[in-house]
Amino acid sequence: MRIGLDAMGSDLGPSEVIAGAIAGCEFLDDGDSLVLVGDESVISAELEKCETPPNITIQHASETIDMDESPVVAVRSKPDSSIVKLANLQRHGELDACISAGSTGACVAACQMHLRRLKGVHRPGIAVIVPTPKGPLALCDVGANVEARPSHLYQYGVMTSVYLEAVTGIKNPRVGLVSVGEEEGKGNELVKKTFDLLKADDNVNFVGYVEGNDLLKGVCDVMISDGFVGNIILKLIEGLGMGFMKILVKQFMETMPDQMERIMEAVGVIAKEYDFNEHGGAPLLGVNGIWIICHGASSSDGIKNAIRECKKVSAHKVNQHITELLSAGS
Amino acid sequence: MRIGLDAMGSDLGPSEVIAGAIAGCEFLDDGDSLVLVGDESVISAELEKCETPPNITIQHASETIDMDESPVVAVRSKPDSSIVKLANLQRHGELDACISAGSTGACVAACQMHLRRLKGVHRPGIAVIVPTPKGPLALCDVGANVEARPSHLYQYGVMTSVYLEAVTGIKNPRVGLVSVGEEEGKGNELVKKTFDLLKADDNVNFVGYVEGNDLLKGVCDVMISDGFVGNIILKLIEGLGMGFMKILVKQFMETMPDQMERIMEAVGVIAKEYDFNEHGGAPLLGVNGIWIICHGASSSDGIKNAIRECKKVSAHKVNQHITELLSAGS
Repeated sequence: MRIGLDAMGSDLGPSEVIAGAIAGCEFLDDGDSLVLVGDESVISAELEKCETPPNITIQHASETIDMDESPVVAVRSKPDSSIVKLANLQRHGELDACISAGSTGACVAACQMHLRRLKGVHRPGIAVIVPTPKGPLALCDVGANVEARPSHLYQYGVMTSVYLEAVTGIKNPRVGLVSVGEEEGKGNELVKKTFDLLKADDNVNFVGYVEGNDLLKGVCDVMISDGFVGNIILKLIEGLGMGFMKILVKQFMETMPDQMERIMEAVGVIAKEYDFNEHGGAPLLGVNGIWIICHGASSSDGIKNAIRECKKVSAHKVNQHITELLSAGS
Repeated sequence: MRIGLDAMGSDLGPSEVIAGAIAGCEFLDDGDSLVLVGDESVISAELEKCETPPNITIQHASETIDMDESPVVAVRSKPDSSIVKLANLQRHGELDACISAGSTGACVAACQMHLRRLKGVHRPGIAVIVPTPKGPLALCDVGANVEARPSHLYQYGVMTSVYLEAVTGIKNPRVGLVSVGEEEGKGNELVKKTFDLLKADDNVNFVGYVEGNDLLKGVCDVMISDGFVGNIILKLIEGLGMGFMKILVKQFMETMPDQMERIMEAVGVIAKEYDFNEHGGAPLLGVNGIWIICHGASSSDGIKNAIRECKKVSAHKVNQHITELLSAGS
């Protein structure tokens, strides 16, 4: 398979993406290749510094989309940006998958406009796998669709189940719908209507409403919400995890200064275990292809693991399964 | 002032509420009194076990509303429940404030139906003060109104500013609106329209959008959201705080078993600092009276501190200030 990477997308600069691409070659099979899309001179200069594997090539893109640009405007006005170019290359069959740590909004807009959706899918959604003490938990949507309808959320349940089973092996994942109480009948109109849709589909292992404090409790394998709520949840997890660590470490520094080396070692183990780079990006489920969105601050490890993710999504035929489940009803 | 307490509302039973009431007498001034509302025989039996202060009396209520009952149905069908009785006693001037750790939904419904709203207020909202390393942060709404409109959110900004300034002394609190990005123009329709309303009011110190990962960073003093999002945020804080503690403690037990006593002592200090019982309940802002909603698992300390909260809200004339700011535009 041919995997395209947005060389210009990471907050840490092109060198980090390129280092990740080189490291990610270990996941490639015979005949697979990587295409670095972005400013050719910048990419060439980086590649010259090291021994470039023969299955990495460059496609020049003269523009880049910044994080603070309006996604739709940027995608329309910058056809030669790395993100739009990636979407078009995949659309025309020159790539089989794309990876970008650039503007999430621009990735979603480029996919909607150029790559389009799988048959039967109403709206793509971003699924993120979060490590918890009870195992991996997939959240969807975490930001593609902030004005979701019940049918969108229902489809996120179907698509995320397929995806999670494919990449983790969890059979028949339990799907929970994020709401403000566990009892049926609680929540806003959006989740009440979604509840009925999920309940009616025997293909979905729906366990009902789940709440914010269920996140680490292992009550479900998939958590569904609209992109507004999901994005807030994801950022809270990041912010609170880091925040609570700092609060505790500060306290330890006051009362156990003699033990700080061992304490920081233990904190480091946990930080690594719950590091977003370990998983390697979040697929935009429902697009007619494979698109992995990486965290803006992804390290080379994050990019490398996103390459492994592309291979898995492809090998497990995630898109074919989604189409089988959703195209009948469209 | 006369403060009514829902003796039947706590997950920990009437004895905890009654112990909190007795302890809370220390915050009362001359002429103040507490009224325990609930099953008279149960309350009397509890009071007989200790020396009851003379300013505590009982009002019998023959019914209770359970946590899993539909709030509106329960409030309509149980006029002699402790919650409905509290609302009516305050409506008729026999109480000046109420405290309940019972069903939040039933408290909101009873207030809407019986206590009614302050002049100019469209919808009441629950404001919770969360301790952070950068100082107290007030979140509103955390669950009263799951189908909010822009005008409701705007009013939460006004009301919560008044409340936070009154109870903490923070002057001209900075108000942030929870969204999925910091740039103007991000978010769903609800927050975009609310943004414009907050920006247009010079009485509100509006600092724009804030995100989930800003929660512990001190970028604002008040965070506004609809009750659906706010409730999820609040429960995530609870769940993740506890969850991360457990994850870390487990790691320490593996690598530093010799230091567990000192570690648990430090963890205990932090757990106490961020304990919801320390603050003492969340006011339902915008109702025509004072109503403090306590956490369902409130200890006697939580109830005691809610009494202090009633005194503060009353002394600082929170409702008068809200009416001054909001009744002009209605």
